Amino acid sequence: MNPESTKGKLIGVGTGPGDPELMTLKAVRAINEADVLAFFCKKGSSGNGRTIVDAHIRPGTIELPLVYPVTVETHKDEADYKTPINDFFDRSAEEVAAYLNAGKTVAVLSEGDPLFYGSYMHLHVRLKDRYEVDVIAGVTAMSGCWSMTGLPLVQGDDILSVLPGTLSEEKLIERLADTDGAVIMKVGRNLPKIRRALAAVGKLSGALYVERGTMANGASERLETRDESPAPYFSLVLVPGWTNRPGPDHGAAE
Amino acid sequence: MNPESTKGKLIGVGTGPGDPELMTLKAVRAINEADVLAFFCKKGSSGNGRTIVDAHIRPGTIELPLVYPVTVETHKDEADYKTPINDFFDRSAEEVAAYLNAGKTVAVLSEGDPLFYGSYMHLHVRLKDRYEVDVIAGVTAMSGCWSMTGLPLVQGDDILSVLPGTLSEEKLIERLADTDGAVIMKVGRNLPKIRRALAAVGKLSGALYVERGTMANGASERLETRDESPAPYFSLVLVPGWTNRPGPDHGAAE
Ligand SMILES: C[S@@+](CC[C@H](N)C(=O)[O-])C[C@H]1O[C@@H](n2cnc3c(N)ncnc32)[C@H](O)[C@@H]1O
Ligand SMILES: C[S@@+](CC[C@H](N)C(=O)[O-])C[C@H]1O[C@@H](n2cnc3c(N)ncnc32)[C@H](O)[C@@H]1O
Repeated sequence: MNPESTKGKLIGVGTGPGDPELMTLKAVRAINEADVLAFFCKKGSSGNGRTIVDAHIRPGTIELPLVYPVTVETHKDEADYKTPINDFFDRSAEEVAAYLNAGKTVAVLSEGDPLFYGSYMHLHVRLKDRYEVDVIAGVTAMSGCWSMTGLPLVQGDDILSVLPGTLSEEKLIERLADTDGAVIMKVGRNLPKIRRALAAVGKLSGALYVERGTMANGASERLETRDESPAPYFSLVLVPGWTNRPGPDHGAAE
Repeated sequence: MNPESTKGKLIGVGTGPGDPELMTLKAVRAINEADVLAFFCKKGSSGNGRTIVDAHIRPGTIELPLVYPVTVETHKDEADYKTPINDFFDRSAEEVAAYLNAGKTVAVLSEGDPLFYGSYMHLHVRLKDRYEVDVIAGVTAMSGCWSMTGLPLVQGDDILSVLPGTLSEEKLIERLADTDGAVIMKVGRNLPKIRRALAAVGKLSGALYVERGTMANGASERLETRDESPAPYFSLVLVPGWTNRPGPDHGAAE
């Protein structure tokens, strides 16, 4: 670290899961004070993070959209995806660095919490040793989703597993059998597989599917009855631990 | 649900991990608008949640401290703990219900996120079918801790396991060996056991110990060099997944 005082500061800002009221006071302040507001987005869209924070941007703030070169549907394990995406993160980091070198404070938006599966992390690891960096924690998508649905997830001595829906069916079954609560991210085309895995371990009936959690058009339903069409990008599956247990207070008290 | 309109509303309010600026705008509004503010605390202390929200309480708000009958050090698996603690949650729920029946809005504070290992959950399950209930998601302690230390936890297709430090050493070893990132809550007297388990799976050197994360007197250090004295209640251990992987961008790109 050891930043020279003339350099600007990098701030990773968690915007929360979608509802603009789920931004923290600290995020609001950072966005309002930033010289430059950077955010990841797809071509032709300003990005969900930018939408969430809209009301708090000061007139005159420089906006730096970092436009993904490929769609999220590309198979990420293929080499022809990894090279361009790494080049893109390298280039994005240098665009941000140029402003930092000029003494500007750059706030990088990150949906949910920045260091929890966020794209911001790719800038963080590239810049943290060269500049002063602050990370502002945010409400994660999973917290937004279980709060919206009022589903108590884990309590007491429960184990929670956060799993990507991209795991193989076999691996999903193994993981889901051996945990109390679970959250499955990256649902998309993996929905039928996730449903089969939950059914195999007897946990399908309690599972909830949530899309666009806490956003204006958010919705949830039992995964068991959700149709087979691919889920949108902003969706996840919740598997409660605690509430499935017997006892006067659902098991162990805390 | 189907609440009668004359009954008040129950709101579970996440206060975030400690820094009052990590409260959400929605939590601030709920606290400011509540008729009654309820919070769990120990005898002789007003509780950490109450401290976090202090600046936002409207004069005239009724305060309802729910004072734990036993200390957190009691062995929770013993029957002589479970009965009194369940009675306490029953009684607390009825104290809250009395205000709801009188048409009051009751905000119940919950440190971090309410439905993530929070005591609020014990009121939630007792009252949710009788009253209108809203849950306001909060920044979890783990998000506060990894943000404060700037430690990227999980990315891409990583698995994250949230584990209670109360697990047996054998179980901890099994779980830690078979995950990418991990968070270990409830450290306390379990610290030496947690350290041994992480050493056994070769993950001790990357692990961080954080106490009172995001609070004014918060601190962190490598778990490897932390002394053997019991950890305070507000402490946890972070085991990074992503940053331990090789590759130009620490493995899979997202
Ligand atoms: C790249 S990760 C970002 C996670 C984010 N940093 C967080 O703290 O939750 C994207 C995944 O988060 C989930 N997600 C994000 N926002 C969501 C929302 N509002 N509702 C449901 N799922 C959401 C989806 O599963 C999606 O595949
Ligand atoms: C009953 S759980 C409550 C978790 C909370 N609802 C959340 O969303 O994070 C209490 C545990 O959270 C952790 N914890 C809570 N606040 C913390 C803080 N500020 N710093 C470190 N750990 C904390 C400790 O591991 C403690 O044993």
